[in-house]
Amino acid sequence: MLSKTVLTAASLLASQVSAVLMHNGVAATPQMGWDNWNAFGCDVSEDLLLGTANRMVELGLRDAGYYYIVLDDCWSTGRYPNGTLMPDFTKFPNGMAHVAGQIHALGLGFGMYSDAGRYTCGQYAGSLGYEQLDANTFAEWGVDYLKYDNCYNEGQSGTANISYARYDRMSQALNATGRQILYSMCNWGQDHPWDWAYSIANSWRATGDIYDSFDRPDVRCPCSEEQGFDCAFPGFHCSVMNIINKVVWFIHRSQPGGWNDLDMLEIGNGGQTDDEYKIHMTMWAALKSPLIMGTDIRSLDANAYSIYTNPAILALSQDPAGASAQRRWRYYVPSTDMYGGGEIQLWAGNLAQGDYVVILLNAANEALMLNATLADVFLDQGGAISTQAKSNWDVFDLWASRMPNATADAILTANSTVAALNGTSYLYNATAQSYAEGIANNDTLLMGTRVGTWQAGAQSTWSAMVPRHGVMAYRLRPQGAPTVSKRDEL
Amino acid sequence: MLSKTVLTAASLLASQVSAVLMHNGVAATPQMGWDNWNAFGCDVSEDLLLGTANRMVELGLRDAGYYYIVLDDCWSTGRYPNGTLMPDFTKFPNGMAHVAGQIHALGLGFGMYSDAGRYTCGQYAGSLGYEQLDANTFAEWGVDYLKYDNCYNEGQSGTANISYARYDRMSQALNATGRQILYSMCNWGQDHPWDWAYSIANSWRATGDIYDSFDRPDVRCPCSEEQGFDCAFPGFHCSVMNIINKVVWFIHRSQPGGWNDLDMLEIGNGGQTDDEYKIHMTMWAALKSPLIMGTDIRSLDANAYSIYTNPAILALSQDPAGASAQRRWRYYVPSTDMYGGGEIQLWAGNLAQGDYVVILLNAANEALMLNATLADVFLDQGGAISTQAKSNWDVFDLWASRMPNATADAILTANSTVAALNGTSYLYNATAQSYAEGIANNDTLLMGTRVGTWQAGAQSTWSAMVPRHGVMAYRLRPQGAPTVSKRDEL
Amino acid sequence: MLSKTVLTAASLLASQVSAVLMHNGVAATPQMGWDNWNAFGCDVSEDLLLGTANRMVELGLRDAGYYYIVLDDCWSTGRYPNGTLMPDFTKFPNGMAHVAGQIHALGLGFGMYSDAGRYTCGQYAGSLGYEQLDANTFAEWGVDYLKYDNCYNEGQSGTANISYARYDRMSQALNATGRQILYSMCNWGQDHPWDWAYSIANSWRATGDIYDSFDRPDVRCPCSEEQGFDCAFPGFHCSVMNIINKVVWFIHRSQPGGWNDLDMLEIGNGGQTDDEYKIHMTMWAALKSPLIMGTDIRSLDANAYSIYTNPAILALSQDPAGASAQRRWRYYVPSTDMYGGGEIQLWAGNLAQGDYVVILLNAANEALMLNATLADVFLDQGGAISTQAKSNWDVFDLWASRMPNATADAILTANSTVAALNGTSYLYNATAQSYAEGIANNDTLLMGTRVGTWQAGAQSTWSAMVPRHGVMAYRLRPQGAPTVSKRDEL
Amino acid sequence: MLSKTVLTAASLLASQVSAVLMHNGVAATPQMGWDNWNAFGCDVSEDLLLGTANRMVELGLRDAGYYYIVLDDCWSTGRYPNGTLMPDFTKFPNGMAHVAGQIHALGLGFGMYSDAGRYTCGQYAGSLGYEQLDANTFAEWGVDYLKYDNCYNEGQSGTANISYARYDRMSQALNATGRQILYSMCNWGQDHPWDWAYSIANSWRATGDIYDSFDRPDVRCPCSEEQGFDCAFPGFHCSVMNIINKVVWFIHRSQPGGWNDLDMLEIGNGGQTDDEYKIHMTMWAALKSPLIMGTDIRSLDANAYSIYTNPAILALSQDPAGASAQRRWRYYVPSTDMYGGGEIQLWAGNLAQGDYVVILLNAANEALMLNATLADVFLDQGGAISTQAKSNWDVFDLWASRMPNATADAILTANSTVAALNGTSYLYNATAQSYAEGIANNDTLLMGTRVGTWQAGAQSTWSAMVPRHGVMAYRLRPQGAPTVSKRDEL
Repeated sequence: MLSKTVLTAASLLASQVSAVLMHNGVAATPQMGWDNWNAFGCDVSEDLLLGTANRMVELGLRDAGYYYIVLDDCWSTGRYPNGTLMPDFTKFPNGMAHVAGQIHALGLGFGMYSDAGRYTCGQYAGSLGYEQLDANTFAEWGVDYLKYDNCYNEGQSGTANISYARYDRMSQALNATGRQILYSMCNWGQDHPWDWAYSIANSWRATGDIYDSFDRPDVRCPCSEEQGFDCAFPGFHCSVMNIINKVVWFIHRSQPGGWNDLDMLEIGNGGQTDDEYKIHMTMWAALKSPLIMGTDIRSLDANAYSIYTNPAILALSQDPAGASAQRRWRYYVPSTDMYGGGEIQLWAGNLAQGDYVVILLNAANEALMLNATLADVFLDQGGAISTQAKSNWDVFDLWASRMPNATADAILTANSTVAALNGTSYLYNATAQSYAEGIANNDTLLMGTRVGTWQAGAQSTWSAMVPRHGVMAYRLRPQGAPTVSKRDEL
Repeated sequence: MLSKTVLTAASLLASQVSAVLMHNGVAATPQMGWDNWNAFGCDVSEDLLLGTANRMVELGLRDAGYYYIVLDDCWSTGRYPNGTLMPDFTKFPNGMAHVAGQIHALGLGFGMYSDAGRYTCGQYAGSLGYEQLDANTFAEWGVDYLKYDNCYNEGQSGTANISYARYDRMSQALNATGRQILYSMCNWGQDHPWDWAYSIANSWRATGDIYDSFDRPDVRCPCSEEQGFDCAFPGFHCSVMNIINKVVWFIHRSQPGGWNDLDMLEIGNGGQTDDEYKIHMTMWAALKSPLIMGTDIRSLDANAYSIYTNPAILALSQDPAGASAQRRWRYYVPSTDMYGGGEIQLWAGNLAQGDYVVILLNAANEALMLNATLADVFLDQGGAISTQAKSNWDVFDLWASRMPNATADAILTANSTVAALNGTSYLYNATAQSYAEGIANNDTLLMGTRVGTWQAGAQSTWSAMVPRHGVMAYRLRPQGAPTVSKRDEL
Repeated sequence: MLSKTVLTAASLLASQVSAVLMHNGVAATPQMGWDNWNAFGCDVSEDLLLGTANRMVELGLRDAGYYYIVLDDCWSTGRYPNGTLMPDFTKFPNGMAHVAGQIHALGLGFGMYSDAGRYTCGQYAGSLGYEQLDANTFAEWGVDYLKYDNCYNEGQSGTANISYARYDRMSQALNATGRQILYSMCNWGQDHPWDWAYSIANSWRATGDIYDSFDRPDVRCPCSEEQGFDCAFPGFHCSVMNIINKVVWFIHRSQPGGWNDLDMLEIGNGGQTDDEYKIHMTMWAALKSPLIMGTDIRSLDANAYSIYTNPAILALSQDPAGASAQRRWRYYVPSTDMYGGGEIQLWAGNLAQGDYVVILLNAANEALMLNATLADVFLDQGGAISTQAKSNWDVFDLWASRMPNATADAILTANSTVAALNGTSYLYNATAQSYAEGIANNDTLLMGTRVGTWQAGAQSTWSAMVPRHGVMAYRLRPQGAPTVSKRDEL
Repeated sequence: MLSKTVLTAASLLASQVSAVLMHNGVAATPQMGWDNWNAFGCDVSEDLLLGTANRMVELGLRDAGYYYIVLDDCWSTGRYPNGTLMPDFTKFPNGMAHVAGQIHALGLGFGMYSDAGRYTCGQYAGSLGYEQLDANTFAEWGVDYLKYDNCYNEGQSGTANISYARYDRMSQALNATGRQILYSMCNWGQDHPWDWAYSIANSWRATGDIYDSFDRPDVRCPCSEEQGFDCAFPGFHCSVMNIINKVVWFIHRSQPGGWNDLDMLEIGNGGQTDDEYKIHMTMWAALKSPLIMGTDIRSLDANAYSIYTNPAILALSQDPAGASAQRRWRYYVPSTDMYGGGEIQLWAGNLAQGDYVVILLNAANEALMLNATLADVFLDQGGAISTQAKSNWDVFDLWASRMPNATADAILTANSTVAALNGTSYLYNATAQSYAEGIANNDTLLMGTRVGTWQAGAQSTWSAMVPRHGVMAYRLRPQGAPTVSKRDEL
């Protein structure tokens, strides 16, 4: 059996996480934060990091849960004679410990980057063979998060045990520092990390690199769902839909403390429509990917801001049950776009409190009325013969209470949430009350907007018109006592 | 050549097993028993096990051959300071040795569960690195059977030699205890166990996890027959038909002492029709899978009871020749069901005494008249030019003498077979007379009901109307002297 | 580059083999002989071997080149206390050295069988871990040939280096005995032996086990040409056409001293037509497979006898150039048989003396006129722009001079070639004159029957009506001086 | 992320290479030269090498950049008693150091060949196990370049780490000699060298062996783009189009100091049309393959000569940015040739100075008008929303200034460029001015012929009639200031 998280009825109802946090106690829910790579590449500096960090506080992004400020590649100039990594003092004139201190002072965590190879992807010094020394350096600098890449790995891949050994060395080194450092493996799905990484890392990249496209195929992102789960050459230029369809095989392998990482968010970078970015955000949250903003925070637009901060969607990501939504069906439809794509999907998954999430995804080239039955939604609970299909459910629309653009613009202009919000509530403050507490307390920001009742019955159907390249996402809450199945998840 | 079991004419006729029982002398025929997982998951307790064991005796299931009571995952609370596994005393207040003793007192065997990884699938302590200590503990407790899972294996998979080494450690540890313990590998077919496990284990899981569906595809059970035998990611939510079609490549690799395990039986759990469950039971028996009941014995219904106890089908499973039936043909038919499936199949295999089993499987969406020729049936003996095709055969229907529901209901209500059977004979008592002896003695319960003669001739045809998602199963017995081929099996 | 045998013009013309005989100097051409398995399985005995050996001499099969009498599996009863393999004295009352001596006295070589695993396929003692001891035993017994199987190999497969290491141990052990023993690896193509076995063995099985069918698909022989060269699960019940189409990828990897073994011949076993058996014989000879008769020599029929002994076909096998024919084209045709097959193929390859072999293979369900151009035939020499396409060629039909059935019957009845042949010449005597010498001397028995001239010209076409499931095979000899290309083989 | 070469705007504009030259400082741009194999195979001699070298000087090929004279297989007769490789003194009567000296005296580099196996492909002594000894020998002889093949490697392949270890041994041995020797791995793409070879070698063969055909499929070159990037059996007889389509997955992995080698050039060998050879040359240059002439220089024809020497195409190869063009789209078209091929492709890539290369490739069976938009060309820069799509571009045709046949004939006849060129300029002299300098200086020979302006606009289209099996290649130069994107390459 492959059960990873056997949640009992009691633990589900109490919103307590019974699962073991495998190796270091971090990331009970998927990590949230910001990383400079997608927007800035190698153009990194103290100014960029601290400027971004400040604005994340001012815009309420920190309080929404985006905690880690991650410095990606290209920050070093090699090693000191004693082997210690040397920062690029042109970019970081005060060194890295200073940056960490400033970020900590803002109530944020500091992430850095290295590589399980001789060089980083940008051909800077890698950590292969220097694991303990570099882990110690990061710990001394006050680093809270390590993104650990896979370039120039000297052929140390090809079977699970080879990749495991290489990545485990840094895992053990980080643990040996005594500092609690989130360990984010970036090995692009090679050698099936979903089979082995949960006991040594907090997340592992599951696919090739994302790029800012909804569904354009690119030969450099070679695998698709049809070609199976086993993508020995992950590549890059992977679209949002490519990634979604590629992780269906193993997305259930995520668990509290160890998450499938679908790569950083592209929202705000301009290559997709607002509806497409809503799909991107919804799916990354429901599939329990780390949520790492990948855009320029200093030039954030209203659309991107209100997507990144939607509390009802973030509540999916930070739900204490820690169970990924899973796909219930996928159908091809004749309405294809310029890339030949055209499909519709139903996703569902269990949340704490006996709630469920239901997602209708329309990747066709026109708006379509999509339908789901309770038998579909509760397939993993027994489908037509499940207890859940015999209940009535309150249905909450998770995008209905999205912040209006006017409000978002006001905040972005004022660079402060205080005045702009003016008492209205579109932003959740997880610093004040954790998502787990908010969910337990039925915080309305986290629930979305109630839009109706889904009547009991296996074939009882919920229908919604879903825009072209768009999504509808719902939280289902049982009317009456929570209906808990014997096991929610095999 | 790949001959695994070269049965001579003499040994076939004498119902003697000439094959080596590879490593520990156990499981000359596929193991039978009950395991709590499919029905109860982690909700395990002394009460559940002993209550079930008692009822298995009372209902005649023990005497039918269901010998092992297997406690699955979630029974421990970690390890004592000396490293020994500690039972969860809330669930097992008297410890495991007590449970074993009670089960033994009922004339049953006791099975337990661990995992060839750091954790079990339910994230309890695993046995990787503790093989000898844990084997000793199991032996001291009086365990007769170990189910050994594959979660959290620290990347120790990817090639046969890696998986072999990991599973061999427990094999050797069990043998070193001096106690004869059936070793049931649960590595989901990874790294082709049918190529190497027979010399270290009594059975090995051949596929991903079963679920209670006849033929619904699920993306989490990624491989199919069309994709070949090599399923590096076995997954779960595998339907009965998916499993049947996935093992055709290697099912002949079963042999006395080492069996392909198609996963536990779902009969009685409500997700399939009675006809579908008959397919499930027939195929698991004929393909020599272990027969491990996976339902709640305390709430067994009449249909499930009479399927589980059909002596003529159980005689296929426990036939001393130990040779799996193999598929003779598979055709797609236009009558497809809601999942797009629609196919018919012929299976055949040799039994002791010169008998053969023939199975007509109809997975189409309507009843169909299916036809088989002797050339088809005896394909492995030479087909049209085989000696067997030149014989007349008595044909016995293996489901014709199934226990009536009224009888089953009476037994289940009385919780005793004695009064309810009232002299009629629907239950075989293997405690009194082994299946090998019963077969040698032509016990009528094991033969089914004679329904005709299949005349000699390569193109001589047997036809039967087979229900939608249904099966007809026959034993063929030669008229006159048994016809034995040079080799029954390459 | 992948050139394995760079034959210079001089060496080609002189019929000298310039290639290195990789590791033990044996098998400059593919080995020929007889093995009991296909016809007798485990029913082996001294009587069978010596009776067969005697008749092979009497029927002229030894003189035709069938030199090795190979005893397959099931000959032992385990090991003596000192570890030495013990023969089954019921089957071999005088021991194996006696058998070897008798066989040697007949001018034949003696082959035996073991397995690179814990057990043989028939579950007798295997040689894994006993390599040197067993090699010494075989050498002491006077064994000239070892067939070395792959069952029960304890998971020691999965990558080339694992399989190489296991098979190399016996290779070194055999060499260390000081006796020259032909080493026939039987690892069914696992881990691509054509990539590495030529430096440690004289032949390697390239596919799953053959069975006596022309083209029936069987699920237990899972791979086909369309699925590529990489068949991790070779299986058995592979038809003649399956094997032919499966080896196209790598058949050029054969070389003097190391041959792709397409498995033993089924000719005479009754499952194919005479035309189909002619395909089988022609292709095995032209593709340089070992030619190991797999039928009962004592009940050989006239058709099989005249196929096995056709000198013009055997001359393809024993040609000193040692280069496999390769496929020039394959087309599917609408005329399919009951198994759905229906295709035509052209094969060609270079022979010593500047000759070439051309094969028109018709696997369609009706006789077809097939056509080949010189550009097709000489594709590897440059096709339309090759020097060879500018020459005229004498064409010799290799089956036209096949022994008549009356002659064959007379020999088989008399159990002697002397009287029956009565001066006519249908049998080549390689004991008196080697194939290399006969070819150099233009022995007419080895040339076939001249049937015409193929005029020069790239598009110059040879046409022949080829029977259903039949073959036409030709030797091409240049008119005028031999035309030698810069390199015959890349 | 998979970024291999993060070029900053400054470095791009200055034509400076910022990338690390991974292990030995050689091959900042792809190596150029000549190798005897394609044209002469084993027929090697001092006369051949020195005769060729002399003519390469006389014809201006050395000055065009073809620097290395590479002696391929078949040059030795084994090893001296002390283990040192012994030259074949029949072929090289004065030994190898003499050859090296003569070649050096002509201002050329000397390359030799060995094999990472027991034997070379031609079955001469291989270097496996002799790495340091042989590296020392090569260094002592004055060798500047080692082609290192993959035959007879004793099964040491199958995963990246196995192949890496084997090839790394020679890499380290070469470096230990102290002589700077270009290391050209020839392992045919096995085990994904584009993932690991850049840190140990200057180039690695990416596919099976080329042969002189534009697009004929051959079963011995088994993989295609459709079958994915993972070709475990590379084979030979790979056509130009097969190779082009096979490297799309990983061609971006080339980088200064480490190049994907698409195998040696066939231009001049007679198997393709002039238009096909232009495709061959254009693509090998734009994809940054080493450019190794594979024809007989002493009988070069005018067409081949003017292709090999086209300065505007060579400037693609030797561009200091060192970034491979990548495919933007591929479409199948109905106009298929005799082999069933029929497709059109757009390729683009960035060059130094802010220039770009654009290639329209027509593999259909008729001339077609092909169209490309700026959004297509600048897809990796953001496509429709890229800065580049908002610029106007000067378009230079790279084949428009090809040397006329009369000029080429005059040079080839005179065996000297001096008189024949007579002041006209068709040949670039890289000895006098490096390609980097020439590009920085806007040398007109390197620019091609200006043929128009490509107006700004995402959908602004460039159209060209491209011949059957033909190509149009352009350099784009920005009008006004160079437009540099944040990152040119992810």
